[in-house]
Amino acid sequence: MIRKDNIKIGNLCTRGRNHSCKPKKQCKWLAATAAAALTPATPLRFKPYSTLRFLSFYSKNPTSPRLFPPLPRRPVPFHSTIPRKRCFCSVISAALQSGEMKKREFPEKKVGEMGNTVGEFRKKLKIADIKGGPDECLNRVGQTVVVMGWVRTVRVQSSVTFLEVNDGSSLSNMQCVMNSDAEGYDQVESGLIATGASIWVQGTLVASQGSKQKVELKVEKVVVVGKSDPSYPIQKKRVSREFLRTKAHLRPRTNTFGAVARVRNALAYATHKFFQENGFVWISSPIITASDCEGAGEQFCVTTLIPSSREAADSPVDAIPNTKNGLIDWSQDFFGKPAFLTVSGQLNAETYATALSDVYTFGPTFRAENSNTSRHLAEFWMIEPELAFADLDDDMACATAYLQYVVRHVLDNCKEDMEFFNTWIEKGVIDRLNDVAEKDFVQLTYTDAIGLLLKAKKKFEFPVKWGCDLQSEHERYITEEAFKGCPVIIRDYPKEIKAFYMRQNDDGKTVAAMDMLVPRVGELIGGSQREERLDYLENRLDELKLSKESYWWYLDLRRYGSVPHAGFGLGFERLVQFATGIENIRDAIPFPRAPGSAEF
Amino acid sequence: MIRKDNIKIGNLCTRGRNHSCKPKKQCKWLAATAAAALTPATPLRFKPYSTLRFLSFYSKNPTSPRLFPPLPRRPVPFHSTIPRKRCFCSVISAALQSGEMKKREFPEKKVGEMGNTVGEFRKKLKIADIKGGPDECLNRVGQTVVVMGWVRTVRVQSSVTFLEVNDGSSLSNMQCVMNSDAEGYDQVESGLIATGASIWVQGTLVASQGSKQKVELKVEKVVVVGKSDPSYPIQKKRVSREFLRTKAHLRPRTNTFGAVARVRNALAYATHKFFQENGFVWISSPIITASDCEGAGEQFCVTTLIPSSREAADSPVDAIPNTKNGLIDWSQDFFGKPAFLTVSGQLNAETYATALSDVYTFGPTFRAENSNTSRHLAEFWMIEPELAFADLDDDMACATAYLQYVVRHVLDNCKEDMEFFNTWIEKGVIDRLNDVAEKDFVQLTYTDAIGLLLKAKKKFEFPVKWGCDLQSEHERYITEEAFKGCPVIIRDYPKEIKAFYMRQNDDGKTVAAMDMLVPRVGELIGGSQREERLDYLENRLDELKLSKESYWWYLDLRRYGSVPHAGFGLGFERLVQFATGIENIRDAIPFPRAPGSAEF
Repeated sequence: MIRKDNIKIGNLCTRGRNHSCKPKKQCKWLAATAAAALTPATPLRFKPYSTLRFLSFYSKNPTSPRLFPPLPRRPVPFHSTIPRKRCFCSVISAALQSGEMKKREFPEKKVGEMGNTVGEFRKKLKIADIKGGPDECLNRVGQTVVVMGWVRTVRVQSSVTFLEVNDGSSLSNMQCVMNSDAEGYDQVESGLIATGASIWVQGTLVASQGSKQKVELKVEKVVVVGKSDPSYPIQKKRVSREFLRTKAHLRPRTNTFGAVARVRNALAYATHKFFQENGFVWISSPIITASDCEGAGEQFCVTTLIPSSREAADSPVDAIPNTKNGLIDWSQDFFGKPAFLTVSGQLNAETYATALSDVYTFGPTFRAENSNTSRHLAEFWMIEPELAFADLDDDMACATAYLQYVVRHVLDNCKEDMEFFNTWIEKGVIDRLNDVAEKDFVQLTYTDAIGLLLKAKKKFEFPVKWGCDLQSEHERYITEEAFKGCPVIIRDYPKEIKAFYMRQNDDGKTVAAMDMLVPRVGELIGGSQREERLDYLENRLDELKLSKESYWWYLDLRRYGSVPHAGFGLGFERLVQFATGIENIRDAIPFPRAPGSAEF
Repeated sequence: MIRKDNIKIGNLCTRGRNHSCKPKKQCKWLAATAAAALTPATPLRFKPYSTLRFLSFYSKNPTSPRLFPPLPRRPVPFHSTIPRKRCFCSVISAALQSGEMKKREFPEKKVGEMGNTVGEFRKKLKIADIKGGPDECLNRVGQTVVVMGWVRTVRVQSSVTFLEVNDGSSLSNMQCVMNSDAEGYDQVESGLIATGASIWVQGTLVASQGSKQKVELKVEKVVVVGKSDPSYPIQKKRVSREFLRTKAHLRPRTNTFGAVARVRNALAYATHKFFQENGFVWISSPIITASDCEGAGEQFCVTTLIPSSREAADSPVDAIPNTKNGLIDWSQDFFGKPAFLTVSGQLNAETYATALSDVYTFGPTFRAENSNTSRHLAEFWMIEPELAFADLDDDMACATAYLQYVVRHVLDNCKEDMEFFNTWIEKGVIDRLNDVAEKDFVQLTYTDAIGLLLKAKKKFEFPVKWGCDLQSEHERYITEEAFKGCPVIIRDYPKEIKAFYMRQNDDGKTVAAMDMLVPRVGELIGGSQREERLDYLENRLDELKLSKESYWWYLDLRRYGSVPHAGFGLGFERLVQFATGIENIRDAIPFPRAPGSAEF
């Protein structure tokens, strides 16, 4: 069973500390790993065709429990395959070996003449699970576990080698301590175990003598899964976030971007949880739209008039179908007319709110604006709830409750990542978020806000007067100084600076709009009560010289059972910035899109 | 307090059945509603500027509890607004009145010189909540509740009028029974209360004498919120789903589309729950991509070379920037090169899986294919999990567990909607789903599947031979007949008919791909283990004459710490079809996009 040839091979029997199996060869829990010679052209340390073997376990025959070494596989002859054996990847076997999950029998059920049943899925045991227990997993001391992940650092000392291994489940690594007698130690000596390599490590959890962690892994065996070419661009030295933007495929392997990804995920899930728990229905608003009734920003055109994606780079202009007048012939386009990427799902969400009462969207939206700033993306995710039988106060209350919920969720569920941001990205971010989660939010009218700014003992770059749009400096003064770090909602803006669909207030000058301002970020949420009165809405369209015909379906919502309704929009990446303190919005989304930039 | 002028006005004090307030005028819980005369131009039954009043309650002064009638509002004078009173919409007051929520004090806190705190958000009381209690809310008999929703039908009988009201929270309506002495009955007589109108109804829950429901609402008072124009296209008579596609803004108000929306929502939330509970991180893969390395289907081009959305319809072809050679000058486009809508987020998801271990995407994807079928959309949502340290067996196990989880979730949480589908859309759909949730899934190789088809005593339209792609008729034969309604996973397909990134099996002929077939729908999920060996992947790219340079970042994942990994993709609308029995995929998404069709 235990083969040793020119390469590293091992055996392990780790069903539990007290499990004795004699002879080892016959133990059902024995898992032999085979790793083949490193061929020059492959990053993996196995023979062609055998990569997964060292990770996998095959059952010897259909009725016996699995976890036996694989049968040799041969090319499949036409029409008569040898019945396939199921293999189980190390993630499962590792979990079994760690004692984390109870052993379960997987009888291979034969179904009919051909075919077997599909294996059972189990949650992987990850570093976050191992370290996340009570008292930082000191209770696990003595257990044998398997960790799979990527090597962050290797420190070779005279008597002992320290590997920091990360699997992305948590910020902190598993510190693996290895003596020269550990199986696979030669891979340290040969330099295979290096920053960036992926490894499989098995060892015993022991109390750590270091101050950084309570436990560490005393390595019994290590296998390199995939080596890392020496050109690996993310070495230990700190690299700039600008540089990492050019390596968007590798940057999630860094502390910062791993933490951003986890917090972003937590914010997204908290968003769904909040709305679902409050009876909202998730709606997918369309991405491609032929409505020209948005006007919230410049739009990207979506077309198939350019013949084929592969050949686009060499497309002649005159191959684009045109009419006799030399105009683009949209009738030949995919949708038979010009189509664009959506700038907002709100109008569509309103159609569902006026049927299902409360809905929300969570999807991508687009702006074709040439803004090369740290606050703008051409492609970003928006959350747009829409509440029926609701007014602006309900809207503000909902926006406040939502923000407090997701902030509390992140503080409760991403402690380690938040401490990282607090130390390395923005000192005080945790206090800032705690303020948001706990303080009362303030509301004041736009008119009062203007009064407040005019009385301020502060010189603003942009002059303040009633009717002007509030600039970032104004917004930050209000939330950061006038209200000392409290989030502030400004409401009832002049109708001239707000969208056509916002409900006109009784004063005839303002609309029931609201913007939520938060310290450091400024405007985070914008919302309004929608104009539900058909005549008001039609008049407003006329005033703005917008076509009532294009808005036929939107007007229909006011024609048939109109209800007071309100909603708001939130740029998800702004929320990620707000929650993490990350300065550039391009670092708040996995693959940022901006003018001149659509890599990956 | 009780004003009566030329219009319907009322008072109500319904804090609870046993609440006596004397004199009524001073009762904190008194909520006066005011409805203004119906002006011809508005669909609402109120004077301009006063719509929300009947729904809203204002506090008389900042320190007293709210729920008093509004102060008159005047135009806001410049720089000195009267301190704004908070108004609370009827959704909250109705909930309070229903006895559903405990009374809570909302002291209006003045913050600084200007500004008040924001009110508290509360979950609305909906029909689903009222009827969803134990024993179908018989325990609530005697309670006073408020229902807000849309009138589905009005049946006027000699002594009593029945209104069926729906708020979208559940399939079933609240049956409201009204005598002629109920406040607002004149609105029945005048025809204002008609199908499609939105109304506010207050009444007492009583045991129903009808067989369709256990309780009904004995109406004390009704107010029309928004009338419905007689042209309302969705009257009681059943309308075809084809017709409703032309009314996508109103169709969620029908039984079928309300139920589809709720089940779709449940499937989406269950998707997030499944992956989150299993330690996966949600990743937003990019929508716009300049990579030409997808090849999974025809792509839409995304461009700003056409000057502006509003003017697109009249764009001359020669206004498109071109080079000296007459080619489109992509350097002037937004991204500086041709850009497209993504056809899959998989390659991007792999970058995060090889950093965070397990991730999933859930976002829109696109195909610019001219398929006008009931199974294809130009824009659809995809779920693409990607598992690191995993092989094809893990992948199949995950896909199986995922599907069983979401199906079980829908069966448990959408009982009423599923019974509707079972009765009206597809007889037997519940049994079909129960089978999926409970039966073992079968796996067999492609080679075995071909053998099985060749032996079948059935004439197929498309001939069967090793190497051919399986057609729908073949897939359905396997899952529906050969395995009697069991979902079947076919694995190890010939490499020629599968994508370049799939891992080559040891036989040199097949790849570690899998397709999950389910009864009625056919292929629901497709996945594979990815080729993690750099040399294999490069060879495959060469064989297929694909450019290694375009795939530089994808190849990097194999250069630096490569790991065995696998994933699958699932078209979300197919899943909705599968779960509901809805035949046309255009009815499984709120706003379907297809050739020639991008309305709304």
